[in-house]
Amino acid sequence: MPDGSSIEIDAERLWFRLYELAEIGRSEGGGVTRLSFTEEERAAKDLVASYMREAGLEVREDVAGNLIGRREGSDPEVPVVLAGSHVDSVPNGGDFDGPLGVLAAVEALQVMEERDLNTQRPIEVVAFTDEEGARFGFGMIGSRATAGLLTPEDLDREDENGVSIAQAMRDCSLDPERIGEAARPEGSIHAYVELHIEQGKILENEALPVGVVTGIAGPVWLRLILEGEAGHAGTTPMGLRRDALSAAAAIIGTVEREAARTGTTVGTVGQLELMPGGINIIPGHVSFSLDLRDIDQDVRDEVEARIADEARRICEERGIVLETQTLQRLPPVLCSDLVREAAKEACDALAFEPFELASGAGHDGMHLADLRPIGMVFVRSKDGLSHNPDEYSSREDCAAGAEVLYRTLLKLANEN
Amino acid sequence: MPDGSSIEIDAERLWFRLYELAEIGRSEGGGVTRLSFTEEERAAKDLVASYMREAGLEVREDVAGNLIGRREGSDPEVPVVLAGSHVDSVPNGGDFDGPLGVLAAVEALQVMEERDLNTQRPIEVVAFTDEEGARFGFGMIGSRATAGLLTPEDLDREDENGVSIAQAMRDCSLDPERIGEAARPEGSIHAYVELHIEQGKILENEALPVGVVTGIAGPVWLRLILEGEAGHAGTTPMGLRRDALSAAAAIIGTVEREAARTGTTVGTVGQLELMPGGINIIPGHVSFSLDLRDIDQDVRDEVEARIADEARRICEERGIVLETQTLQRLPPVLCSDLVREAAKEACDALAFEPFELASGAGHDGMHLADLRPIGMVFVRSKDGLSHNPDEYSSREDCAAGAEVLYRTLLKLANEN
Repeated sequence: MPDGSSIEIDAERLWFRLYELAEIGRSEGGGVTRLSFTEEERAAKDLVASYMREAGLEVREDVAGNLIGRREGSDPEVPVVLAGSHVDSVPNGGDFDGPLGVLAAVEALQVMEERDLNTQRPIEVVAFTDEEGARFGFGMIGSRATAGLLTPEDLDREDENGVSIAQAMRDCSLDPERIGEAARPEGSIHAYVELHIEQGKILENEALPVGVVTGIAGPVWLRLILEGEAGHAGTTPMGLRRDALSAAAAIIGTVEREAARTGTTVGTVGQLELMPGGINIIPGHVSFSLDLRDIDQDVRDEVEARIADEARRICEERGIVLETQTLQRLPPVLCSDLVREAAKEACDALAFEPFELASGAGHDGMHLADLRPIGMVFVRSKDGLSHNPDEYSSREDCAAGAEVLYRTLLKLANEN
Repeated sequence: MPDGSSIEIDAERLWFRLYELAEIGRSEGGGVTRLSFTEEERAAKDLVASYMREAGLEVREDVAGNLIGRREGSDPEVPVVLAGSHVDSVPNGGDFDGPLGVLAAVEALQVMEERDLNTQRPIEVVAFTDEEGARFGFGMIGSRATAGLLTPEDLDREDENGVSIAQAMRDCSLDPERIGEAARPEGSIHAYVELHIEQGKILENEALPVGVVTGIAGPVWLRLILEGEAGHAGTTPMGLRRDALSAAAAIIGTVEREAARTGTTVGTVGQLELMPGGINIIPGHVSFSLDLRDIDQDVRDEVEARIADEARRICEERGIVLETQTLQRLPPVLCSDLVREAAKEACDALAFEPFELASGAGHDGMHLADLRPIGMVFVRSKDGLSHNPDEYSSREDCAAGAEVLYRTLLKLANEN
């Protein structure tokens, strides 16, 4: 650990702002609820805008509702360095997922201002609209818009009250017809960097405050539907059964085994329903989800193929009809060497081990990566918890992450 | 198959009565709904009583509502041979489960009457009250009462409308205070025989119309509760997981393997719930049922012990806390040689293979077995279906079963 003297950002100010922002949308469960295009999200953006102004930034919002604060570079015409995250949350979520990345970037720019550090490139902080997707089941709206990836149909999606994204935008005085204007021109961004809590336990297990992200895993979401035959639990000998749950159990074992052998892929069955559901009735029908991720698409696809082969074999052997539905299939995104090297250099300078790890969770950078280099820095999460009121990263770890971000931004904004 | 000439019972009359009885409580789903102590059950008993009278039987009902028809023996003082089943059904159940055993016994006695065949021992046909337990979640009420096994607390159980068994009895002019009087004195029954549909596919697979039952499997019902740790599907490496569903899947595999290796035990996981249930969240909590049955208690208990050992090992290895609750534990009941030999002799005489099989489902005889020898004969079930409107046994198979019952009763009522 570096001694306090090498930390230039103001840890106390960052910590206080994290606390102040978390009070907006504090829910009964103790967590934070700030869905997109709500009063709570508006209040959060207003508070962040006030911090941006304190930091001397020029504040604006784009047509997607993304809040942006800009610090001019010595050459205003060159591509900007972008840093940010989001301020929306899941229902009863935590204090750090999103806000840390936004507030640490504001903090970094405020310190540059206070220390009168000029950079060649402009730097912008962005708080993207609706990263979580908690309201419309369709997240990363702000970053998709920034990348020019939103179609009008995307804005037809509705929340549970039947309010569409387009309507929610209009209610916030945003014009959904103009969503295309949020797209940043190609070549206008030098790099995108995001500081985020890890949401896992790898850094905790390594006893490290920060880590540099190698890439963002691409998820494949499948639903496997098994049709066997229901029957009396007492009168159907084991050899005459077509038990859909026993087949599902064998497939779940395969998921675990095949993911584990790669060392990098993660495979999860998070939902499972069965029918008829009587204690003395053999399950004739089982449906379960499968979430597979890796930052190496070839590895992920090979695991998927092995599981599919094995599932077919298991079901054939047992007279079970197997149907597989694809719910989502996103490619993994690699973080650029440009950002990784800058972040590792910052770690080195602070005497942090420049530890690298993959991001299993999705982040706004996924959508920006097609157009410009991206990178992320993770901060240790207590117990790996996130989307949970108990989500926690210590003041020291948040400060360490912000300091790495600050130095990374300085490097990216000044290098040739 | 025997030619028609060796069949002495009236197949047409039996088939017609099965049809006529099935019309009582015919529900919209096409099945039969006759819950205990309802108008439908009353109407069914009245119809059966009319058949009993046609058969020349002396009809009575005991204090538990069991309908009894008696044909006197040449020695009225000796223990009676009892044959029967039940006329209540599950909701939207089938036409054969219960009625076949009652109507075949009535048919057997009617043929004896028509053929003027005297037996040394009296023979009684009984339609037991509420075998299924569909109304109060507590079945075999009539046979429990006959065996003297009912306690006043048993009659406090309520249906979904809050009506207790005791109240339902009073509504049918039965006095629950006098339930003890339904108990038959020790030594008053020579043997109990029940004809029933198999509710499984063994006879169908063997291409046999009837089979002689070796015993009634005793069920153990357990609930296994696994507490692991929920976590993000993307950010938790396989090696850091405490996935309750993966552990459950491994245990379900063990259940299948350990039951199958015995050749006789059946093991079923019919219910499974998990939490939190998000497609991208590792299940931290799983609860599932386990139904284990065998007619050999030692074999069943050994399978249970092996599963318990293996479940403990699986959960320990994975850092999962395992809790096991026992919901039910009934001993298996063996059918007596007396009845099995008489029934196999009847099969032999009819040129049916005297095939023996175990009953995986529970039956009224379970409760009578403590006091007197019991036995059962099974009739082939189409596709093994029961508790289902599609439950079906052919006219020929029903006749074959009734003929075996008729000859078995003659033998039991005359032998020394």
